[in-house]
Amino acid sequence: MNYLFTNLIGSFVLDQNLKIIDQIPFKSLAEYAQSKEAESKLKKKHPQLQMLPQDKLPQVLTLFKEKKYFKEFHDKNIALTQEAVKDSVSNDNFIIQAIANIAELDKACNLLSKRLREWYCWYAPEISEKITNHEQFADAIIQKSKKELLAEFKIKESMGAEMEKIHVDEILLLAKQVSQLYHLRQQHEQYLEHIMKKYCPNLLELAGTTIGAKLMELSRGLKHLALLPASTIQLLGAEKALFRHITSGSKSPKYGVLFAHPLIQKARKEERGKAARMLADKLSLCARLDYFKGEFKAKEYKKELEEKFR
Amino acid sequence: MNYLFTNLIGSFVLDQNLKIIDQIPFKSLAEYAQSKEAESKLKKKHPQLQMLPQDKLPQVLTLFKEKKYFKEFHDKNIALTQEAVKDSVSNDNFIIQAIANIAELDKACNLLSKRLREWYCWYAPEISEKITNHEQFADAIIQKSKKELLAEFKIKESMGAEMEKIHVDEILLLAKQVSQLYHLRQQHEQYLEHIMKKYCPNLLELAGTTIGAKLMELSRGLKHLALLPASTIQLLGAEKALFRHITSGSKSPKYGVLFAHPLIQKARKEERGKAARMLADKLSLCARLDYFKGEFKAKEYKKELEEKFR
Repeated sequence: MNYLFTNLIGSFVLDQNLKIIDQIPFKSLAEYAQSKEAESKLKKKHPQLQMLPQDKLPQVLTLFKEKKYFKEFHDKNIALTQEAVKDSVSNDNFIIQAIANIAELDKACNLLSKRLREWYCWYAPEISEKITNHEQFADAIIQKSKKELLAEFKIKESMGAEMEKIHVDEILLLAKQVSQLYHLRQQHEQYLEHIMKKYCPNLLELAGTTIGAKLMELSRGLKHLALLPASTIQLLGAEKALFRHITSGSKSPKYGVLFAHPLIQKARKEERGKAARMLADKLSLCARLDYFKGEFKAKEYKKELEEKFR
Repeated sequence: MNYLFTNLIGSFVLDQNLKIIDQIPFKSLAEYAQSKEAESKLKKKHPQLQMLPQDKLPQVLTLFKEKKYFKEFHDKNIALTQEAVKDSVSNDNFIIQAIANIAELDKACNLLSKRLREWYCWYAPEISEKITNHEQFADAIIQKSKKELLAEFKIKESMGAEMEKIHVDEILLLAKQVSQLYHLRQQHEQYLEHIMKKYCPNLLELAGTTIGAKLMELSRGLKHLALLPASTIQLLGAEKALFRHITSGSKSPKYGVLFAHPLIQKARKEERGKAARMLADKLSLCARLDYFKGEFKAKEYKKELEEKFR
């Protein structure tokens, strides 16, 4: 009775005493991937070939502890791991990185916008008061001079100092940088929409770009999101409040990142919890449809929800 | 006996019963600034004119509580304040804003650089390991393709995934932004050096751009810095440690922002406290020289200190 045994470096035929009597070595990982072929070749050559029974495995493994095999095992294992690592990069990763960077850009934008306002206030404090949106403020002071801006808001004279060009230029350099950061943020959103449209169209349709991506970030990918119960999806992003609820008995949270969803924003206050629950329900379905490559049903769901909470 | 009284709206001659018998109204703030002229004119016209004694002031002030003066007082006061606010903007403010923004840019750069590295690691993790400097890392991945970089560091194969161009482009957009933020930081430093060279050459020479500007930020301007005792300058930026020392008796700090000064960095550890004290001493002199427009002596001081702590 002979045994068949296959590992990374080849297919082997062993006799009853577990000596190697025949083998087909694998030259590359591609051959290892096609190991069935090698096995069937050996099976034809040696009739009555059996798979190695479990209890004999430890003995066989000691066979391969010989030094001559070491390098091959090492190299092939590394290569195998490399391939696995490479293949592990999926759309999930891109989406998670992009949405995380959007959050980080927001932080940077706020930080620099505040400084920009404070700095520009030495020059024309009135403008900062008139334009509350950070992005619009940066764009406005880039595009228009102090005079033009004052005229636009019908301010006769500014309290700000007359500055030499060198000082104003320095402020405008910062303004340009802030404006570019906001543009990058927009670009990231478009990019997100582009990949989500292919990868998870249902989720994108019902949750929108930002919320959809945030859900994927919090659940570490579409697969995990699809496997989560709807009640967990409802509370993703509200972990702190949830644990506060569990430990100190404060009110349980009704929604996490879903709070920003238009459906919940538009719902009456007393119905928001219910809306969040139903939205999470449908989002869970969407994630599953997307993960298992199902049909595009999000539009129907959306309509259904919108009719319910008009 | 007649009295002379001058306020924002004019110079007035009052008789013994404190009735206005003559006046020169000021049409503008400029005339108010030249009020001495109006007063001397009135003095010529009315001999034996006295300044209003203190005890009669309250009575005169009630005179001006009439409604007809209100608008003029209001407008002129506002204009006066506006001018004062305008004039209060000095080089101090520019320096403080610029150095504060450098600190903020550093924060933003670090935040986005970390994200950039993490994101790029899906593509070619080896490069992030090889280039530890954030700025160089961003520049490298902008200028060179993954292939070129791998060849440069003699890495045969990357563990990173093969990405489509759309994904790589998104990472590179972030890299460009990071690189620009670093450039803006450099630009700010040059700007700082430029204005400090004119405004506080001694401080600039001895402290360097960043430390000099930080000292001015912490002391809220050159004037205050010039008035601070050297021992306070020595500890600027170490307030936390100082108060910890006072309240809980931990070791007293030896230096604040001065720690980063090359003189202290190069000094032997046991001499650092002494070096900081002497440096603060000279910096205090520099700030005074600069504030009171003295000579340029910082080079001598610098040489002196360098010889002492070689």
